[in-house]
Amino acid sequence: MRISTRSNVDPFIVMDVMQAAARAEARGEHIIHMEVGQPGTGAPRGAAAALTEAMGQGSLGYTVALGIPELRARIAQMYGEWYNVDLDPNRIIITPGSSGAFILAFTALFDTGDKVGIGAPGYPSYRQILKALALTPVDLPTSAENRFQPVASDFAGMDLAGLMVASPANPTGTMLDKPAMAALVEACAANGTSFISDEIYHGVEYEKKAVTALEITDEAYVINSFSKYFSMTGWRVGWMVVPEDHVRVVERIAQNMFICAPHASQIAALAAMDCDDELQQNMDIYRANRALMLDGLRDAGFTSFAPPDGAFYVYADVSDLTRDSLSFAAEILEKAKVSVTPGLDFDPERGGTTLRFSYARSTEDIREGLARLKAFMAAR
Amino acid sequence: MRISTRSNVDPFIVMDVMQAAARAEARGEHIIHMEVGQPGTGAPRGAAAALTEAMGQGSLGYTVALGIPELRARIAQMYGEWYNVDLDPNRIIITPGSSGAFILAFTALFDTGDKVGIGAPGYPSYRQILKALALTPVDLPTSAENRFQPVASDFAGMDLAGLMVASPANPTGTMLDKPAMAALVEACAANGTSFISDEIYHGVEYEKKAVTALEITDEAYVINSFSKYFSMTGWRVGWMVVPEDHVRVVERIAQNMFICAPHASQIAALAAMDCDDELQQNMDIYRANRALMLDGLRDAGFTSFAPPDGAFYVYADVSDLTRDSLSFAAEILEKAKVSVTPGLDFDPERGGTTLRFSYARSTEDIREGLARLKAFMAAR
Repeated sequence: MRISTRSNVDPFIVMDVMQAAARAEARGEHIIHMEVGQPGTGAPRGAAAALTEAMGQGSLGYTVALGIPELRARIAQMYGEWYNVDLDPNRIIITPGSSGAFILAFTALFDTGDKVGIGAPGYPSYRQILKALALTPVDLPTSAENRFQPVASDFAGMDLAGLMVASPANPTGTMLDKPAMAALVEACAANGTSFISDEIYHGVEYEKKAVTALEITDEAYVINSFSKYFSMTGWRVGWMVVPEDHVRVVERIAQNMFICAPHASQIAALAAMDCDDELQQNMDIYRANRALMLDGLRDAGFTSFAPPDGAFYVYADVSDLTRDSLSFAAEILEKAKVSVTPGLDFDPERGGTTLRFSYARSTEDIREGLARLKAFMAAR
Repeated sequence: MRISTRSNVDPFIVMDVMQAAARAEARGEHIIHMEVGQPGTGAPRGAAAALTEAMGQGSLGYTVALGIPELRARIAQMYGEWYNVDLDPNRIIITPGSSGAFILAFTALFDTGDKVGIGAPGYPSYRQILKALALTPVDLPTSAENRFQPVASDFAGMDLAGLMVASPANPTGTMLDKPAMAALVEACAANGTSFISDEIYHGVEYEKKAVTALEITDEAYVINSFSKYFSMTGWRVGWMVVPEDHVRVVERIAQNMFICAPHASQIAALAAMDCDDELQQNMDIYRANRALMLDGLRDAGFTSFAPPDGAFYVYADVSDLTRDSLSFAAEILEKAKVSVTPGLDFDPERGGTTLRFSYARSTEDIREGLARLKAFMAAR
C-alpha cells in the first residue's frame, strides 16, 4: 500500500532520548528526567472524585460536539476572573486536547498549500500537523533580543495565511507582553493573516500574568488545554475560543472529525477548575524548581538562556559547548544520567546548539539533576 | 477572518431532528428516540471500577502514541478468539475513537485531491472528514441486490486511491460475507487502491459472525472502536490495525496529531474487554429489540428494508410514502412523537426516500415507539 506524501512527518528526536533513557533504566540505572513535557502530578483529587461519582450515575455517552454547556460556561467565567475579559460561552469549543484544537483551527482557516508562520524555536507538532494537512509551515527564526518570540518584521511581505504564536512558549518559557502581542495582531489584521494564539501554559507563570489574545481582539483563535496548569495531560481535553461567526463552521468540523471530546475528561476538567488549592500547590513546586534551575544551571555552566516567564522549561544556548545537541544530550544521559531534550525538535535549523531542560517534576529530582549536571560539566 | 474552502462540510441533517426533539421535550412532550446512534447503556461496570482504582494510583499522564501495551496485546488476543486470526500486537494502534483512526488512515494513505470511494448509503463523516482533509470522496451508489454494499464493478476504471467499506454497515446493518469482501480486496489490490475496513459494529451481529478484512489480507487498514459492542461511545477510544510497514508512519502522525488516546479511556477499555457477561446482556437487549423491529416496522407499514445482519439500525425504503424524508421525519416526530433519521445524511442523492430507525435503546422504548408508529401510519 502506498504511503502518502503528506504523512512524511519528522520523528520526534526526543523519542530517541527517551528510549535511550528507558534502556538505561531497564539496565538498572537511575535517570533524572528533564526531558518530559508534562507535570509529574495527576489530575486534581476533586476531578477524580467527580468522575467516580459521574460513572456511578450516567452512561457518559457522546456529548454535543461543542462540549458540555457547564464546562463552556465555567471556562467563560475563568476568562472574567483571570483576565477581566467578558467572554460569550457560545464562542468556546471543548476539544480533544490542544492537539484537537490545532487540527480544527488549521482545517477551518487554511486551504492546501497555505503558508502558516510559526516561531522557531517552537512546539514541533505545529509544523508536523500543518504538513499532515497539506499546509505549508513557515519557520520564523526568532532572536534572543525579541525573547524568542516573532515580531511583525519577521513575516513582512511573506503573504502568510496564518500566524501561530505561543505565550508562554515551549521551549523557551518566554511570554509576549500586551504591546508585543497587540503589534502582532495588528500586523496580521493588516495583511489578512489569521492570528492563532496557543495559550496552553497560561496559569503556569511566575513574574506576571500571561496576556490572552482576547484582551486585544475577538478576531483570533485562542487555544488552551487542561494539560498543563490543570495537570491533566493524558485526559486529552482542551478548548478553543473562536470569533462568533466561526463557531458553526468549527462545530461542523468537530462533529465529523471528533464527534466530541472525551465525556469523562470533560467532567473531570469541570471539577478541576474548582481545585485551586491543589493546583496552587503544584505551582509552588514549579516556582521552587524554577528558582533552583536558574541558579543551578548557571552554576553548572549553562549560562545562556532567556529567563522563563512561564511554562516549566529552560531553553539554553550551548553553542559554546557543542554544535551537535543530539550527541551532547546522549553524552549527558550516559555520563550524568540526566535526560534532556536536544533543540533540534524545536528549531530544525539552529537547534544543534540548544538544549531544553524541563523542571516539571519533583523538586527532589530537580535538585539531584542539577548536582549531576554540575559534576558532569566540572569533569568535562 | 477567512474561512477555508475545505471546512465547508455539510451539517448533519439529523441534528435538526434532534433539536426539534429536544424542543418538544422542553415543552413537556415524551419522545421515543429512534434517531440515536449509540447504546443507551454506559461502559461496563468493570471498566468504571478499573478506572476508579487507577485514578487512585497513578497520574494518568500521556501514554505512548501507539497506546498502552497491555491494551494492544489484549486486542490481539481478541482477534485470535473472535476470528482465529494470529495478529501481531505491534500492528495495533490505539486511537481516539474510530474518528481518530479515520483521520490517521486518510492522512497516512492519501494526498490532496486523491479519490476515495465510499458506499452510499454510508456513515456521513467519511465524506466530511475526507473533504476537510482536501481529499475527494466518491459516492458509490449501492443497490438492494448487493445488500447495500459496494461491489468491484461499482468502481471499475475510477482510479480510486482508496476504498472504504463498513461491515456491518451504518445505516443498513448489512454485512459483507467473506467472498464479497475478498472480491473487493482483490479488486483493490489489482488497481493499487488502498483498502480500509470499518469494523466498528463487530460484535453487534445476530445471525453470524462478521468477517474481518484481516481474515483475508494483511494489506488493509482495519478500524474498530470501543463505542458500540463495548458500549463506550463518549470515551473516545478505538483502534486501527495497519500493515507492518505502515506502523512507524502512523505512529509519527499520531504523536503529532493526537499525542495519545485518552489514558483513562484506555484503562477503562482494557477492563471492558473482560466484561463479557454484561456486554452479552446488552446484546440480548439488541436481539430482542431487533426482533420487535422487524415485525413491528412491517406491521406499521414500513416493509422495504434489508434484514440487518448487525449494528442496531433498520434502513427503510419509504419511496412509496414520500420523496422528502426530512419533512416525513418531521411529521413522524410531530404526530407520532418518535424521532427518526432521514436518509439524506447517509445518501445525499437518494436519501430523500429513506429513513433510518435505530433500536439501540431500551426494549420498552422500542415497543412503545413501534406502537406509536403503527398508530401514526394507520391514521395517515
